[in-house]
Amino acid sequence: MARSALLLYADTQRSADMRYFCGFEVHDPFIALRIGDRSLGVFNALEYGRARKEAALDEVLPLEPLQAAVRKRYPDRRPTPADVILELARERDLHAVTVPEEFPAGLYEALRAAGLKVAVSDGPVFPERERKSAREAAAIKAGNACAAAGLAAAERLLRASRPRAGRLVLGGQPLTSERVRFAIEVACLEAGGIAADTIVAGGDQACDPHMRGTGPLRAGELIIVDIFPRMTGTGYHGDMTRTFLRGRASDAQRALVAAVRAAQLAALKAIKAGVAGKTVHQQCLDVFAQRGYETKHTPKGSVGFFHGTGHGLGLAIHEAPRVSVAENLLPAGAVVTVEPGLYYPGLGGCRIEDVVQVTARRPRRLSDFHYDWELT
Amino acid sequence: MARSALLLYADTQRSADMRYFCGFEVHDPFIALRIGDRSLGVFNALEYGRARKEAALDEVLPLEPLQAAVRKRYPDRRPTPADVILELARERDLHAVTVPEEFPAGLYEALRAAGLKVAVSDGPVFPERERKSAREAAAIKAGNACAAAGLAAAERLLRASRPRAGRLVLGGQPLTSERVRFAIEVACLEAGGIAADTIVAGGDQACDPHMRGTGPLRAGELIIVDIFPRMTGTGYHGDMTRTFLRGRASDAQRALVAAVRAAQLAALKAIKAGVAGKTVHQQCLDVFAQRGYETKHTPKGSVGFFHGTGHGLGLAIHEAPRVSVAENLLPAGAVVTVEPGLYYPGLGGCRIEDVVQVTARRPRRLSDFHYDWELT
Repeated sequence: MARSALLLYADTQRSADMRYFCGFEVHDPFIALRIGDRSLGVFNALEYGRARKEAALDEVLPLEPLQAAVRKRYPDRRPTPADVILELARERDLHAVTVPEEFPAGLYEALRAAGLKVAVSDGPVFPERERKSAREAAAIKAGNACAAAGLAAAERLLRASRPRAGRLVLGGQPLTSERVRFAIEVACLEAGGIAADTIVAGGDQACDPHMRGTGPLRAGELIIVDIFPRMTGTGYHGDMTRTFLRGRASDAQRALVAAVRAAQLAALKAIKAGVAGKTVHQQCLDVFAQRGYETKHTPKGSVGFFHGTGHGLGLAIHEAPRVSVAENLLPAGAVVTVEPGLYYPGLGGCRIEDVVQVTARRPRRLSDFHYDWELT
Repeated sequence: MARSALLLYADTQRSADMRYFCGFEVHDPFIALRIGDRSLGVFNALEYGRARKEAALDEVLPLEPLQAAVRKRYPDRRPTPADVILELARERDLHAVTVPEEFPAGLYEALRAAGLKVAVSDGPVFPERERKSAREAAAIKAGNACAAAGLAAAERLLRASRPRAGRLVLGGQPLTSERVRFAIEVACLEAGGIAADTIVAGGDQACDPHMRGTGPLRAGELIIVDIFPRMTGTGYHGDMTRTFLRGRASDAQRALVAAVRAAQLAALKAIKAGVAGKTVHQQCLDVFAQRGYETKHTPKGSVGFFHGTGHGLGLAIHEAPRVSVAENLLPAGAVVTVEPGLYYPGLGGCRIEDVVQVTARRPRRLSDFHYDWELT
């Protein structure tokens, strides 16, 4: 009987699909299959005992007997992952498998060369990942509580600092992006997450939206703090941004922040199951256009609003659905960020980001932190 | 003129090759090419400004003009990465590209379907990654200094704790794997690295070598502490393990630890440029066999020494060359871990791990932490 199956080969840090499928953390790539509605994974001796205890798979197989079977067939061969997959396919009478788009091309070619029918999935292999269960939404909410702990730590340091000759000083030392980031990372660890690549960027640095930020922070400059921790227990992420300013803001800075917040509120209001992501994105574009904030692309970089309004959030930081110019609808259950921003070197950058779950009515908030930003 | 090129499509966290090639951190996948000896990368507006400042590429191209060119050719199309790569190939007169084994199969098929010749590299696309430069060795040494800061933090807590009814107690609270891990993670952050999935596992938990460890730690049990931080500035890793015991060890525990340390020293002595990884691994097997430590695979798991002696370390935690049963030589300049271990439920687990760079003579140590383990 010829049967088809879904084949994965990945580790769970790099592949959100694999983390979703096997339900625990594995650092090195391994083989996993879904045959009908049964799931199985193949683990070496290093992982096997733990997999038996922790994996959410119907079957946990040891790798070594499969390697031994390969060696019996080809005595001179050191079994490769392709050999093991082919051996398993023989044992299970599988002649065709589907693999995700991210499946490694080298392994894909090796399996095809050996006669296995391998089809690359047209679209996501777990489309259900887009609609979050209550358990998943709770895990993301915990991720955002972790991010909020980081925001609170940043705010505490900024409030406690004092301007001296334009720079912020705390405990006799300049308050730097690095010091604030360290406080955020510790707060996130305490809250159960790892916050890699946290952004604490002030002034013109913040105008490159993915610049992490470095060096002394200044009084009177807009400081973007963007925190996206991965929760150690669940693998789910939080993702929140606030923009702070220590001291008194200028009228132009206040107008900029007000525009970003207005855009965020307009976008939040438009989010509903079945609405197109780009309709939500358009709300932000409209608010910025009405208020005269132009977007321009120049050879030296872009200014204005030049990223999407948001993205799906879950086991991956960026996943479906998009809230941008992309053609997709927002299904009920999807969890998305809402994070418009404006960036003008000289004036500074501002981004405000929250996370909501899409419902048939108002979106359900999964993030909670205040919007006071002018820390006088 | 038909020319060949190397094509990458990845982000720099998941792909050590991409991190190596472009020299800075980018969270979302992007297109990069090496044409002859010139390197180029394509970045969207979100990354472009930063890429111009930080990327170690000869050419940094904005994505949007390439997307516009695609739209001009196919007005109804939302440009995919494949479209953009094909557009770039046209502009640069490229007809054939080589991709790494890890290249996504979906993109690979899309490019081939459009007529581009795509070959999957037979082996690593940057074989030079195996031999570390002085700069890379220094970055790994810094990673190990970070790991050592974590080990020191763990040791401080264990030493400060007191046994009460068999459990370790500190500050009136049980000393748990979680508390020790938190102290390690903070120490690593202070030292410039992020230590994900740090192992602090005592007793039988440590007998699953990749079990992170949970709950109260006990007096008189072997506690494995394995720390592998990624340095935020460079992307290079450290990787060190020590096994501690708070209280007095039994004779059997002392014999186990002595055997692991003897195996490590034997392996270190055998490491030299041109030696086979499996020759080094055999030293550990011999020491354990001489001392009567058997390795067995059972349906419930394995006991004894059932993992490799070590692995290459760099931008990836596990990379070439292997120090195991695998068929490969250790070239001069390679950086490898040396981490034999023994695991027997009931008695406990022990692993000791250091990192060295292979030379024509004695290996050069890139890790530094003492071997006192019985914390009486």
